[in-house]
Amino acid sequence: MSALADFEPYYAVIFTSVLHAETPGYSEMATLIEELAKKQKGYLGFESARSDTGISVSYWKTEEDIRQWKQQSDHLIAQQTGIQNWYQYYKVRVCKVEREYEFTDHTAQL
Amino acid sequence: MSALADFEPYYAVIFTSVLHAETPGYSEMATLIEELAKKQKGYLGFESARSDTGISVSYWKTEEDIRQWKQQSDHLIAQQTGIQNWYQYYKVRVCKVEREYEFTDHTAQL
Repeated sequence: MSALADFEPYYAVIFTSVLHAETPGYSEMATLIEELAKKQKGYLGFESARSDTGISVSYWKTEEDIRQWKQQSDHLIAQQTGIQNWYQYYKVRVCKVEREYEFTDHTAQL
Repeated sequence: MSALADFEPYYAVIFTSVLHAETPGYSEMATLIEELAKKQKGYLGFESARSDTGISVSYWKTEEDIRQWKQQSDHLIAQQTGIQNWYQYYKVRVCKVEREYEFTDHTAQL
């Protein structure tokens, strides 16, 4: 368990979604968009998991970086396609990460 | 797509984890802890998904509610058991939700 004394706040976008039963082209687009995000200014990281609900969290240096990413042209196309074809529901939350801590079991292979 | 004009900021705890291959008692405890959280002061909601990585996000009215929840006695036992038995890795991020928007496809059955 550790906490960074000189912690610098950053931003998280929590994207929660429920997909339609059929989502042609979705996983290819998800991979493409993740690759694209990595090249974007201010990108810090990405985590994703899906059960009935999908949760993807992307991390960014500043709120401005998030705004730029939202307006990126290929990403705009993906958002539009998502609304038309893939999502029953989604919710986007833009958050400021104010503190964090983590645990690693060093006896285990990650 | 909608945005609340009178949006009131609230808090999110993003809990990202990688489990060990064997996690005896984990799912029972997860259910129990979720039930417990719902009764806690300031609780707003909970979302969870697991692929290789698990992401759980709980939502709270204030940071103080999060601190209280972290110190709740049964939850402390769960945290300790998790460190000993279930988690290879976890990271906790406490975030302030600053804005949000959502989309619902009203032609689909949720």
